[in-house]
Amino acid sequence: MGFTLKQFEQIKERLGGARRVAEPLLESSVQTNGAQHEVILGIDPSLRGTGYGILRVARPHPRALAFGVVHCPAGWERSRCLVRIAQTLREAIQQHRPSVCAIEGLFFAQNLQTALLLGEARGVSLLAAAEAGLQIFEMAPRKVKQATVGYGGAGKEAVAKMVQRMLRLPELPQADAADALALALAFGQERGRYSLTPLKRL
Amino acid sequence: MGFTLKQFEQIKERLGGARRVAEPLLESSVQTNGAQHEVILGIDPSLRGTGYGILRVARPHPRALAFGVVHCPAGWERSRCLVRIAQTLREAIQQHRPSVCAIEGLFFAQNLQTALLLGEARGVSLLAAAEAGLQIFEMAPRKVKQATVGYGGAGKEAVAKMVQRMLRLPELPQADAADALALALAFGQERGRYSLTPLKRL
Repeated sequence: MGFTLKQFEQIKERLGGARRVAEPLLESSVQTNGAQHEVILGIDPSLRGTGYGILRVARPHPRALAFGVVHCPAGWERSRCLVRIAQTLREAIQQHRPSVCAIEGLFFAQNLQTALLLGEARGVSLLAAAEAGLQIFEMAPRKVKQATVGYGGAGKEAVAKMVQRMLRLPELPQADAADALALALAFGQERGRYSLTPLKRL
Repeated sequence: MGFTLKQFEQIKERLGGARRVAEPLLESSVQTNGAQHEVILGIDPSLRGTGYGILRVARPHPRALAFGVVHCPAGWERSRCLVRIAQTLREAIQQHRPSVCAIEGLFFAQNLQTALLLGEARGVSLLAAAEAGLQIFEMAPRKVKQATVGYGGAGKEAVAKMVQRMLRLPELPQADAADALALALAFGQERGRYSLTPLKRL
């Protein structure tokens, strides 16, 4: 199958044109809806310290409904950690009824073993969200930091401080919980505006 | 802290002696119990084709109660695959009531992304087993092949054929299901004899 340059330009124009017309309609309905009512769950999974945060997108500023870290002592068997992670997330979901979940996308792992462990924590987190009917999206950490702190290479402390300020929290949240809240915040921002790089649905 | 050579020999003897006395008692009770009644679940997790197999340790030969592969088409979202894996395993566990689970230990992954995906499938598998109250152990693939085929580097075909023969199956099982059954078989053998390298509990 081949196209002449002219055909190709026509197709490109039609595709581009269609997108330019359709997207604002779709996005603005999401925005209206999202800005008023959307409840977002952010998850930053890890075996020993999964962070989670649930917020409601609202005016004048988003409101944190719940957040925390699932601490699993080093002495615990791995399967016990996974059960604790799943149960904590299920309870939080049941209580606050988020409709969407944002989870870390591109990730960092020193080696295959670390990636495997991280994957296990990630798997049960995704399962808890999926079985509760949430739509799941992944966001790259750099994008999350860019959206919240304004700098993709921001440190944990900077993220936590910005999350505290954006959500008017009385205290600085724990780093893993802050990362999860930052994910939810960044996802809320992303949904509320035009985006040229659509998020990957999991 | 230091020991003289004589003290060290005494300690070694005492430790070794205690083990030589205690282990057979423990092992033989496991063996009797295991040989008659034990139901073992083997899991070979992967995102698109998790293999599982449940067998009862029995004389004159172990009997397969159920086995299969959780197929998840490439078009499915990852979260949908994870839900399917967890649900299939939960149903199989509920129906056949295994008391222990053997899962692949040392694993092979080409890169971090593959390890992460494998980890996700592994995480939900472990969760399904742990939430049903199963004891979970991991076994290295080489050890499984060694125990079933007699050669740690055996191919998938050889494993499937040996599993078919050991369990008197009318047909050759699918490769991923055969791997899971091989795990359960090897675990059953391991429990039924002295072992110098105790299995790692997860």
